Amino acid sequence: MLGLMQDQPLLISNMIDFAERHHADGEIVSRRVEGDLHRYTWADVAKRSRQVAHALDGLKLEFSDRVATLAWNGYRHLELYFGVSGSGRVLHTLNPRLHPDQVVWIANHAEDKVLCFDMTFLPIVQAVHARCPMIKTYVALCDADKLPADTGIPNLVSYEAWIGTKPTAYEWPQFDENSASSMCYTSGTTGNPKAALYSHRSTTLHAYAAALPDVMCISARDSILPVVPMFHVNAWGIPYSAALTGAKLVFPGPAMDGKSVYEMMEAESVTYSAGVPTVWQMMLAHMKANNLKFSTMKRTVIGGSACPPAMIRAFNDDYGVEVLHAWGMTEMSPLGTLCTLKNKQLKLPPDAQMQIRLKQGRAIFGVDMKVVNEAGESLPWDGKSSGDLLVKGPWVIAEYFKGEGGNPLVNGWFPTGDVATIDADGFLQITDRSKDVIKSGGEWISSIDVENIAMAHPAVMMAACIGMPHPKWDERPIIAVVKRPDTQVTREELLQFFDGKTAKWQIPDDVIFVDAIPLGATGKMQKMKLREQLKDYKLPTA
Amino acid sequence: MLGLMQDQPLLISNMIDFAERHHADGEIVSRRVEGDLHRYTWADVAKRSRQVAHALDGLKLEFSDRVATLAWNGYRHLELYFGVSGSGRVLHTLNPRLHPDQVVWIANHAEDKVLCFDMTFLPIVQAVHARCPMIKTYVALCDADKLPADTGIPNLVSYEAWIGTKPTAYEWPQFDENSASSMCYTSGTTGNPKAALYSHRSTTLHAYAAALPDVMCISARDSILPVVPMFHVNAWGIPYSAALTGAKLVFPGPAMDGKSVYEMMEAESVTYSAGVPTVWQMMLAHMKANNLKFSTMKRTVIGGSACPPAMIRAFNDDYGVEVLHAWGMTEMSPLGTLCTLKNKQLKLPPDAQMQIRLKQGRAIFGVDMKVVNEAGESLPWDGKSSGDLLVKGPWVIAEYFKGEGGNPLVNGWFPTGDVATIDADGFLQITDRSKDVIKSGGEWISSIDVENIAMAHPAVMMAACIGMPHPKWDERPIIAVVKRPDTQVTREELLQFFDGKTAKWQIPDDVIFVDAIPLGATGKMQKMKLREQLKDYKLPTA
Repeated sequence: MLGLMQDQPLLISNMIDFAERHHADGEIVSRRVEGDLHRYTWADVAKRSRQVAHALDGLKLEFSDRVATLAWNGYRHLELYFGVSGSGRVLHTLNPRLHPDQVVWIANHAEDKVLCFDMTFLPIVQAVHARCPMIKTYVALCDADKLPADTGIPNLVSYEAWIGTKPTAYEWPQFDENSASSMCYTSGTTGNPKAALYSHRSTTLHAYAAALPDVMCISARDSILPVVPMFHVNAWGIPYSAALTGAKLVFPGPAMDGKSVYEMMEAESVTYSAGVPTVWQMMLAHMKANNLKFSTMKRTVIGGSACPPAMIRAFNDDYGVEVLHAWGMTEMSPLGTLCTLKNKQLKLPPDAQMQIRLKQGRAIFGVDMKVVNEAGESLPWDGKSSGDLLVKGPWVIAEYFKGEGGNPLVNGWFPTGDVATIDADGFLQITDRSKDVIKSGGEWISSIDVENIAMAHPAVMMAACIGMPHPKWDERPIIAVVKRPDTQVTREELLQFFDGKTAKWQIPDDVIFVDAIPLGATGKMQKMKLREQLKDYKLPTA
Repeated sequence: MLGLMQDQPLLISNMIDFAERHHADGEIVSRRVEGDLHRYTWADVAKRSRQVAHALDGLKLEFSDRVATLAWNGYRHLELYFGVSGSGRVLHTLNPRLHPDQVVWIANHAEDKVLCFDMTFLPIVQAVHARCPMIKTYVALCDADKLPADTGIPNLVSYEAWIGTKPTAYEWPQFDENSASSMCYTSGTTGNPKAALYSHRSTTLHAYAAALPDVMCISARDSILPVVPMFHVNAWGIPYSAALTGAKLVFPGPAMDGKSVYEMMEAESVTYSAGVPTVWQMMLAHMKANNLKFSTMKRTVIGGSACPPAMIRAFNDDYGVEVLHAWGMTEMSPLGTLCTLKNKQLKLPPDAQMQIRLKQGRAIFGVDMKVVNEAGESLPWDGKSSGDLLVKGPWVIAEYFKGEGGNPLVNGWFPTGDVATIDADGFLQITDRSKDVIKSGGEWISSIDVENIAMAHPAVMMAACIGMPHPKWDERPIIAVVKRPDTQVTREELLQFFDGKTAKWQIPDDVIFVDAIPLGATGKMQKMKLREQLKDYKLPTA
C-alpha cells in the first residue's frame, strides 16, 4: 500500500522558487571579472534564471542537452545553475584550469551545445572553439558593450544581450526527479576523464544533507563565501544549500588571492567558508604577514585533500575559527563525511579533541561507508585497520557518463581509491590514495602521514611524499619540499625533525627541495607528474 | 536523460541502520511506566527493532498491515517506530486521550492487526478489545513477569516475551519509498476522524528538513526531550531526525507533570525540547514556584496551537531559553513553518525581534504556502491581508486514508482550515482557525488576538475567546478565563486591561470565569465543547 502524500518531484527549480518566495531580499554579492562589486537578491537570481530558461528555449535546446560553463564563482554562474537545470537541461561545469586539449576532449565527449564563459577564459575559448563542432552558441558572461568585436569565435553573444530581452515569467517544467541535472568530469590517473552525471533528486537530497547542523550548518543567518569553485563539483553543493535555506552568498570571482578573499570576508560579514587547503594556505599567509584577524568568520570547511594539522591549529588557535575537516569526491556530489564532534567528545581535553578533528569525520545520513581488505572483507572499525574505502548512497554515482570505465561498483558499493581507517565512533581517516601508498619491506607507509610531519616544520610551505624504487625494500619514501619565502632549512635538519614523530622505518630516505610541486586543475598535488619529474633521481640509500 | 546516481530508496530502515553504524553508543534514556529509568544505546534500539520485525513476521503480518500503539514516549515505542515501518508494516499511533468509543472506531477503520500498549492504558484495551475483531494480537509493553494474569484480553503477550527470543539479525526489506510507513488520525470538527497516511519518502524528507539549522537544528551534540507525544504526528518527527543525526533522546514516559519533566531535563543535560503550550505552562509554573533555572537547555520549539506571547517572554527573559514558534498539522507530518530569525533581523532591537518571534515563522524548504481570499485569489504578503491558508509539498497529504472526506486539495493545494497573514519576509501568522473567527459588524475579530491579551494578565492561566450571537453585530466576542491559583481579578478589571491594547470594538463584551476549559486529546482548546457548555448563556449587550 502506498502512502497518501503529495507527489512532488525533487527538482532544482523548487530551490530557486523557494529562495524567491521566502528569501526574496536575501543578498548575493559578487566580485566581477570587471573588478567591481555586484550586489543583488535571491529574487533577482530567480528572475534572471527564468530569462536563461527562455534563452535556452530560444536556441531550441532539448531536454537533457548540455550547457557548458567556464566561469568563476559569480552571480551569472549562479543564474546558469538554476536556469539550465531548472529548464531541464544539463549544466556542465568545465574546469578552466585544464589544458585546452583536455577541454576540447571533454566538451566533445559531453556533446556540449552551448558554452558560457567569463571573459578571463576568452583565450581558452579561442583555442578550442574550432575543435568543438557541437557547440553552436558561445555566450560571454558580460554586458553587451563589453563584447570584443574580433574574437574569431562564431555565434558569440554577450550574456546580457542573450537574456536581457527575455520575459521574467517562466513555468518551470515538471519531470522525473531522476533526470540528469548537471555533470562534472574528474580526471583519473589513467584513461580519459570520466563524468559524474548528477540528478535533480541526488542534488536535492545532497542539498538538504549538506545544510544539516553536523555538516555545513547552513541557515538564513549565514553569509557564505565559497572559495571552492563552482566549476568543481558544484562548489560542494553550496549554491543549492544556500537557495534551500536563504543564506547570503558572497562570490570572490577571479580574485582568489589571500588578500582579496580576506577583505571580501570582512566587508560582507562572512560567517562561513569552504575551500581546499592550498587556497587557505595563501589566505593564512596573508593574514599572518599583516597581523589580521577575522570579525565575523566562525566556521570553515576544509576538504579536497587531507588538511595539514598545522593549518587546522592555525585556524583554531590563532583566528578562533572552527575548522571542519571534510571528505568527499566528484563521484559523491561531493560530500561524504564532515568532522563535527559528538556530544561525548565535547568533554574531552582540547588535545584529544584535536586528534579527532584531524580525521576526515563521520558519515552524513545518506552516505554509508566501509573499509575492506584485499579479499573484499569488511575490516573492523578500530581506527587502526587500514583498507580500501567504499561508499554508497543516493548521491553517489552508479556509473560514469556514457559507461566510461565500465561498471565501477563492487556489490553496489563505489570504491573510492582511498585507503582509510574508521574508528569505533565512525570517524574516517584517509591514510592515503591507494596509488600513493608506499610499500616498504612488506609494510605500508602513508605518504600523507609523512607530509603532515614535514608541514609542521615552520620552514615548509608544501611537501609531497612519494615512493622510490629500492632493491631491498621494494620502495622507500622521499619527500619533495617547497620552502617558505625567507626561511632556511637543510636536508639534515628536516630529516632530524622526523625523529620521535614516527617509526624510524617510516622516515623518508631523502629530502629534495623544489621550487614548486605540480598541482592539478582542482588544486590537488599531482604526484604522478612529480614522479615523472624525478624519473632520473636515484635514492642515496639504494 | 536520467542521471547516473545510485538508486537507493528513502526508507525508514536506513535511519536506524545509520544510527547503529555511526552512533552505536548514542544514548536513549527513558522514564518507564514502572517508574524507573531505562538507559541504552542506538545500537540496542537497532537490534531490538530487528527483533520486532521478526516478531511481526512470526504473526504472518503482511506488507502494509497496520500495527497500532497506545504508548507514551519511551524506548519500546521507539523500537516499534523502526521495527514496524522498517519491516514494511504501517505504524498506527493511537491517541490514548481519545474516548474508548473513538479508539474502537479508529482501530476498526484502520484495520489494525496488532495493538501494542503501555500498561497505563490497560483499562482502555480492556474497554475496547471485544469491539475490535480485527486485532489478533495484543502486546503489553512490559517484562514477561509484569503481565497480569487475568486481564480478560485474549492473545495477550508481553513485549519482552514476544521479541526476546527473536534473532537480532534481520535483512530489512527494500521496497518503493512511496509505500505507507505510518498513520495518524486527526479528529475534525465535523465528520469522522480521518487519517494521514505517511510514506517512507515523506518521512525521510521531513526528517532531513526538521533537523536543519533553521528548523529544529538537531545534531549529534544534542540531548533532546520530546514532550510532544509519539502518539501524535510522530512527536513532530523527532525520533526520525534523532536517528538521522545520532542525537541523544530523553523520554519522559508518563511523567509529564512540570516537576518530572524539569528534573529529567536537568539530569540528562537536555539541550532541546518540543511541546505544546499547555504542557509548557505546567513546567513554567513549577519552575516559577520553586525558583528553578535551566543548566543546559538552549532551545525549545512550541507549537500545536498559537503560543501566548507571555510564555515566549517567560522562556526568553526569565530562563534564557530561545523559543521557536512552530506551526504545522497532522496532515503535514507535521512541520510547516518555524520561527527562526533571518540574518537582517538579528540587527533589530529586542522588541522588534519579539514581534517577529510571536509569528508562527517561515516555510521550511519542501513546504510552500499561500493565503487566499474567498474567491481563491492569492493575497499579498504584507503581514495584514488575512485569508485562508493553503499549503503543498512532499510531506503534505494528497488525500485521507480510504478516501474519507473526498479530495481535500484545491488545485493541488491543501486547505489548512487556518486563517493567516504572511509578511514580506515570508513569516506566517495564524490569526485564527477559520471556524473560530468572530464576525462582528462585517469585520473579523481574531479570537487568538483577544486570548493573547488576556493571557498577558498575571491572574489569567488560560483564556478562550468565542463569538456569541448578537442581534445587531451578528456576533460579539466573550472570553472564558481560568484564574491562576491564589490570584484575584474581577470581570471589570480584566475588561479594563484590554484598554489601549486593541481596537475598542475588538474588546470582548463579557468575561466568564470557569474552572477549566475543555481540552482535546492533543491538548488543544476545544471551543466547540465550550460553546456547547455555554449554550444557555446570553450576552449582556444583546
